[in-house]
Amino acid sequence: MGRQVRESLRRAVGEKAFFDSEADRFLYSYDTSSRKVLPDAVVRAENAEQIAALMAVATRHGIPVTPRGGGSGTTGGSVPVDGGVVLVMSGMNRILSVDMDNLVARAEPGVITGDFHRAVEAKGLFYPPDPASSAFCTLGGNLAECAGGPRAVKYGVTRDYVLGLEAVLPTGELIRTGVQTAKGVVGYDLTRLIVGSEGTLAVITSMNLKLLPLPESVKTLTVVFDEMARAAETVSEIIRRGLIPRTIEYMDQAAIVCAETRMPGELPVDAGAMLIIEVDGRKAEAIAMAEDVALLCQSMGAREVKVAASEDEAARLWAARKAISPALFRYGPHKINEDIVVPRSKIPDVVEKIRELKEKTRLMMVSFGHAGDGNIHFNIMLDKKDASALRRAHWAVEELFRFTLALGGTLSGEHGVGLSKQAYFDMEIGPEEKALMLRLKKAFDPAGILNPHKIF
Amino acid sequence: MGRQVRESLRRAVGEKAFFDSEADRFLYSYDTSSRKVLPDAVVRAENAEQIAALMAVATRHGIPVTPRGGGSGTTGGSVPVDGGVVLVMSGMNRILSVDMDNLVARAEPGVITGDFHRAVEAKGLFYPPDPASSAFCTLGGNLAECAGGPRAVKYGVTRDYVLGLEAVLPTGELIRTGVQTAKGVVGYDLTRLIVGSEGTLAVITSMNLKLLPLPESVKTLTVVFDEMARAAETVSEIIRRGLIPRTIEYMDQAAIVCAETRMPGELPVDAGAMLIIEVDGRKAEAIAMAEDVALLCQSMGAREVKVAASEDEAARLWAARKAISPALFRYGPHKINEDIVVPRSKIPDVVEKIRELKEKTRLMMVSFGHAGDGNIHFNIMLDKKDASALRRAHWAVEELFRFTLALGGTLSGEHGVGLSKQAYFDMEIGPEEKALMLRLKKAFDPAGILNPHKIF
Repeated sequence: MGRQVRESLRRAVGEKAFFDSEADRFLYSYDTSSRKVLPDAVVRAENAEQIAALMAVATRHGIPVTPRGGGSGTTGGSVPVDGGVVLVMSGMNRILSVDMDNLVARAEPGVITGDFHRAVEAKGLFYPPDPASSAFCTLGGNLAECAGGPRAVKYGVTRDYVLGLEAVLPTGELIRTGVQTAKGVVGYDLTRLIVGSEGTLAVITSMNLKLLPLPESVKTLTVVFDEMARAAETVSEIIRRGLIPRTIEYMDQAAIVCAETRMPGELPVDAGAMLIIEVDGRKAEAIAMAEDVALLCQSMGAREVKVAASEDEAARLWAARKAISPALFRYGPHKINEDIVVPRSKIPDVVEKIRELKEKTRLMMVSFGHAGDGNIHFNIMLDKKDASALRRAHWAVEELFRFTLALGGTLSGEHGVGLSKQAYFDMEIGPEEKALMLRLKKAFDPAGILNPHKIF
Repeated sequence: MGRQVRESLRRAVGEKAFFDSEADRFLYSYDTSSRKVLPDAVVRAENAEQIAALMAVATRHGIPVTPRGGGSGTTGGSVPVDGGVVLVMSGMNRILSVDMDNLVARAEPGVITGDFHRAVEAKGLFYPPDPASSAFCTLGGNLAECAGGPRAVKYGVTRDYVLGLEAVLPTGELIRTGVQTAKGVVGYDLTRLIVGSEGTLAVITSMNLKLLPLPESVKTLTVVFDEMARAAETVSEIIRRGLIPRTIEYMDQAAIVCAETRMPGELPVDAGAMLIIEVDGRKAEAIAMAEDVALLCQSMGAREVKVAASEDEAARLWAARKAISPALFRYGPHKINEDIVVPRSKIPDVVEKIRELKEKTRLMMVSFGHAGDGNIHFNIMLDKKDASALRRAHWAVEELFRFTLALGGTLSGEHGVGLSKQAYFDMEIGPEEKALMLRLKKAFDPAGILNPHKIF
């Protein structure tokens, strides 16, 4: 980046928001994926007008801009692979309004998701999307990736809670999309096109989010099985019976061991699998449904079914569940992690396939995730310096992807494509569909400067 | 349309599917809006490959193609304003699969929505979107317009139930979008961009729809008020208390009179307003919630609160509700109908505004609709040959639109823009947003042949 361009950018965003020291650039060179690339500069966003000015200059000079929330993405979405500017959104973190009469909130993208949960829950309201990184990820990042989380079984994903956006186009125009009402169909659905576009189409500067009344009661069940296959069949059976808990999470044995580090002595580290099932609703309904689910699990051969005795116990259980991913490194210095989705009834097939891949590759594999959605977090823990192990791991991932697609599934339920799944993108998306997506990208970003080289 | 082009089109789709008699052309020249334009030809679609062949020829020769479902749209979406071909989708009406294990159905676009309801309900499943025209509208049309209906309060709109599509681009390529699983985030969200695009971006040839388990129990309440304003306040209060019935419909007095023609002697034609409220869930939950709602309505000053005694009574009530729109013509030979949406707490303001407009214009106005969503169907019944009345009507519509937008609302909750709301489009959508939408249109339809002159 030449000196003149640098000065244009600095002038556009203001002295106070522009950083280019070695330390600042290093700080924003990586996310939760394994990639790291130094940007040329960092802009700490303060408001939409400033971002508009930045984008106009960036488009004029062809400078890549990579927006960044909490940096907790797992597929490299916020890594500035082409250098240029990292646009740090975390300073725009105000909850602008929580409208209890209309069940709508307005927020800036830098709000931490967990903070937002607490803020609306304090008013008796509920925002269901709850990615495992909720303690440090941001709403803006959640929208960019269309984050999901455990409660999607009943409540859907981030996309289902976004009513409208304010966003800046790569060319610098500030746009408003969608509505702040329960319905709205005027013009094309720009809102949901931007949601899930992995920060490649526009920079979200504020959002209108739909809220629900906070459920009166939640019951949290842990269900322990000797065998993973039996747990997988139970998940399918719950859905088949028309019971829709808000959450059906599962962990295999290796994942239970990781979770147990947060609840020493309290989790069955010898079990083949564990489910965490949450039901909610009016009090009587939650109790009745918990009973139905418990009976069904017992009839399916569960070794133990337990209802959490208190909110505190349930909270500790969730803290343990959310700690699995970082705790995996006990099994190896590097992680390859995928989040395939299959039709829910096919989970037993995937479990069997994983068992087979484990046997064939002799690699450490851990799986857990949102079984109620058919969304499986599949992890291979290895030392990437071991070339043979790495080769076997890549073979296993490709095998699993092929199997997933053959079952009618998809390669990602919530992590997105970013950098790390690009090699597999064409397995799922055909050439015509890809060409169309690239034309859409061009319609938003003619100079190709917003988060370049992601997805495609 | 020249003879050579006509023969190319005929060859592309096959002799049996191509019609150009005066009668056939007349039959597909209009929909439920007041516009009528003769197409040059009619194609009765049989399969996706045929549509692909048609679109390729149409793009090559610049022939407009207007897809058509049940022709029940109210904004002119299926009127072939530029002539060319009307593509009749109603023959592609197979329900391809209903997967009870995974709560997903695959269907062709010509399936009548009501037939689809019955088919999935027979298997204990539930497809919530339920436009008033469900007896004759099609799933394809519902997707094109992002139809809503009364159950959106709890269950959302059509968009929320579309997992993936097969569609033909205006240039003739067959594409697959989205997934058949509960989650999926690989690539841009083409699915929801096509949904609600009013048939201007692609021709949907099949769809994967999300289903729910059929609720165990539904309770239907009718709540009668002396004054419309009080009914409107009650709707806001229900939402404010965090009660989310699946349906909160309202009718003003003139609408009750229309509905009563289907239930003679059973509806309170002297009342200021009536609400139809439905709650659902497990049996005990539905009963408890119906009681909560009933008590709240009484405390808000309802003159009468009644729970429908049987499923049959509830069904008759809904038949009466769905008959309002066609029955309106008792009040005048022509109808101007709008479907604005406001934040739910603003319904009392809109009710007051409508009262004021009625007084100022001395026109017959009827309002009813999905109060629980803030979605109000506002109708002016008049004789359009009366130039003064027409002028006053247009003034009133513009006034109401301005008021709606000032309240944070939108001009259409479910009917779309089509032809009839184009004059008002720029009131809601800014120039940058419109320019972006037009670039997206171009990315799908470079020759501008698919349903031209709609929306914009």
